[in-house]
Amino acid sequence: MNERTGRGRPRDAAADRAILQAALALFIDKGVEGVSIEQIAKRAGVGKPTIYRRWSGKEDLLAAAIETLVAEDVGRAAPDVVEVQSPYAVVEAAIESAAVATSTHQYRALVARIFGSAVSHPELMARYWERYIVPRRHMATRLLERARAAGTVDPDADLDVAIDMIVGAITYRVLQPNPPDTDEMRRYLRQVYRQVGLLPAPAEREE
Amino acid sequence: MNERTGRGRPRDAAADRAILQAALALFIDKGVEGVSIEQIAKRAGVGKPTIYRRWSGKEDLLAAAIETLVAEDVGRAAPDVVEVQSPYAVVEAAIESAAVATSTHQYRALVARIFGSAVSHPELMARYWERYIVPRRHMATRLLERARAAGTVDPDADLDVAIDMIVGAITYRVLQPNPPDTDEMRRYLRQVYRQVGLLPAPAEREE
Repeated sequence: MNERTGRGRPRDAAADRAILQAALALFIDKGVEGVSIEQIAKRAGVGKPTIYRRWSGKEDLLAAAIETLVAEDVGRAAPDVVEVQSPYAVVEAAIESAAVATSTHQYRALVARIFGSAVSHPELMARYWERYIVPRRHMATRLLERARAAGTVDPDADLDVAIDMIVGAITYRVLQPNPPDTDEMRRYLRQVYRQVGLLPAPAEREE
Repeated sequence: MNERTGRGRPRDAAADRAILQAALALFIDKGVEGVSIEQIAKRAGVGKPTIYRRWSGKEDLLAAAIETLVAEDVGRAAPDVVEVQSPYAVVEAAIESAAVATSTHQYRALVARIFGSAVSHPELMARYWERYIVPRRHMATRLLERARAAGTVDPDADLDVAIDMIVGAITYRVLQPNPPDTDEMRRYLRQVYRQVGLLPAPAEREE
């Protein structure tokens, strides 16, 4: 994906990736207050101008780093899957990778850093929210609308609140003492989705 | 509450309070990584030994500061109220002060700092959790048990998960861009409690 920049240089995908990885690692390690463009450039083995040609500043780069690398790890269902398969099937297919991804130390550390910077560095949260969270919430809303139409989600439920209850519970759980391992997380995710109406109650499952 | 310390000096309640307030303000401003016992002592107008006579270290002091000052602001229902009044009435009585407390900048900033330090400084979260969160969760569990017995909470609900969904949604919501003002928070809290079964659906309320 070599594009031309305003200054006519070809973009270097390998350098971009090194910069994003360096930014994410330093953000997790030191938080937004402890990381500088200079440190990121040094760790990625590039000059500061290379970073500034591509990103407008630290918040912009960190939002991109979180977005790019988390999206690869956690993944998301394709929009057509959400529209075609049953909501139960969509959620069921996502549980395993979600349980693995959310029970890593890296995920916990990243959630802590993102939440930790939300008030002191609102620009980072705003960029991350707009680029990464909003598209995922649109898909989650469609899934909940379909589940509500199918009668498994409370007809009076506010779907934005329901999404906050799902994401809020998971992110809160991983920050608590004694964080869950993958087996415990699998059970926990099932319980959260079931309580919202996105997975069937145990009695409805085949025994 | 003048108690004798190990070294035989009377505790100074005013100094304790100044230390706790200084610790909380610095924690909100700079985070756990940016605050030192020296800064806290300076801001509170005491010597470092005064702090170390009372608290074992920074995490211990910060957990106490969060606990003492947040408990005053947010308050909590008395245990006998939780056992006697209807769950709907207990929640209804708490909505207004919760809406005010959770829509302040101070609350948002404190949540961000606590969550932000959960992985990098697990000792702080562990102390805060044990002293402050666990007793509140016991009360919330009792309330949910009574609501489940009354038939308003799903009989299959995992109550620990339900508590995470309530607290997780609220804390996640206040960290999002465009945080709610008190009116919006009041509506939001009602919706969260309703979706868990701790407030009646709109149709059940008197119009």
